[in-house]
Amino acid sequence: MRLRKVKNALDTVNTSKYIILEPEKHKGNFNKLFNNDNPIYLEIGMGKGNFIIQNALNHPKNNYIGLEKYESVQVRAVQKLEKLDLPNLKLIHMDAQNLKNVFDKEIDTIFLNFSDPWPKSRHSKRRLTSSFFLEIYDSIFKGKPHIIQKTDNIGLFASSIVSLSEYGYTIHNCSLDLHSETIENFETEYEEKFASKGEKINYLDAVKE
Amino acid sequence: MRLRKVKNALDTVNTSKYIILEPEKHKGNFNKLFNNDNPIYLEIGMGKGNFIIQNALNHPKNNYIGLEKYESVQVRAVQKLEKLDLPNLKLIHMDAQNLKNVFDKEIDTIFLNFSDPWPKSRHSKRRLTSSFFLEIYDSIFKGKPHIIQKTDNIGLFASSIVSLSEYGYTIHNCSLDLHSETIENFETEYEEKFASKGEKINYLDAVKE
Repeated sequence: MRLRKVKNALDTVNTSKYIILEPEKHKGNFNKLFNNDNPIYLEIGMGKGNFIIQNALNHPKNNYIGLEKYESVQVRAVQKLEKLDLPNLKLIHMDAQNLKNVFDKEIDTIFLNFSDPWPKSRHSKRRLTSSFFLEIYDSIFKGKPHIIQKTDNIGLFASSIVSLSEYGYTIHNCSLDLHSETIENFETEYEEKFASKGEKINYLDAVKE
Repeated sequence: MRLRKVKNALDTVNTSKYIILEPEKHKGNFNKLFNNDNPIYLEIGMGKGNFIIQNALNHPKNNYIGLEKYESVQVRAVQKLEKLDLPNLKLIHMDAQNLKNVFDKEIDTIFLNFSDPWPKSRHSKRRLTSSFFLEIYDSIFKGKPHIIQKTDNIGLFASSIVSLSEYGYTIHNCSLDLHSETIENFETEYEEKFASKGEKINYLDAVKE
């Protein structure tokens, strides 16, 4: 995604009531932050936030945490949230590489939406479904590892299928045209723009038994 | 595929030296038919034969068996083969539902190329990657079950990924645009026509450990 500079983005993000400023301090105890034992859904790369905000609005009995490393994107979500009061949603400004320092056996499901495809094979480790990341995720899941992915990028999607399958995940649901299916789907900002051009969205839902 | 009637197709097929007329008689002993112990590759739904003929020509140390239930299609392969002498290729005119009566622990790899997608869910059992067929295949593989699939149909492809994954196959290779990859690929007649319109071919290679 091409990033525009947003003036004082970091300040705006850091002063939001939705932001967890020192997430490491809650490691293993995020359920206490939500004051309940409901499942925690984590979106890595939440971008401008439409997907996770819509999920939080429509599923009040689930907890949601959105991660984003670019404050210039996350600030858009913060701005949308100003007028909303969602006790089941928290945001963190961080890089996915630090996940192990922040979470410990407490995540129910990870959402990966339109992640950077890193098309060059020498960068394949950086893909969020590489075995490098799948190993990190292993330590943050509460029960069976569960990943739901959407992407327009066919290279990333094919790579994810192989990587998840070889890592021991079973793919229980898959579509190469998500918008033609009857699956509940909240669109990301990127997805909306992309799909409006008639392009197809790939989708998978995988569990490691 | 829309089928044209071909005059005397069945006669032409049945008199070809490539055709195995009573395949049940060779059950468990197809290697004797080839006079060697080389691996046997089976294409289910060989259509007009370009894929399996090119494979047999280019890999003389592999054995190939092509199955087709429609003689009006298989006759095209028989006609192409008239001027060729390929000791490593045999054809069978039969339905895949009868596989268990014909083969016993002797197939190395199954090719499924552009199989009927059976898009309606009430027909899903008829897809050649349904658990119904995967169970049949189990009994005909010599070693680890190994399936290579190509299809333009995104519904069939997604369904195959889920079905193979849930049945215990690991997907070791996958592409949503086979013709952009450096994988060896012999085109089927259908594929050639389809890809020439710029449409993408889906591909997977899966092994049950």
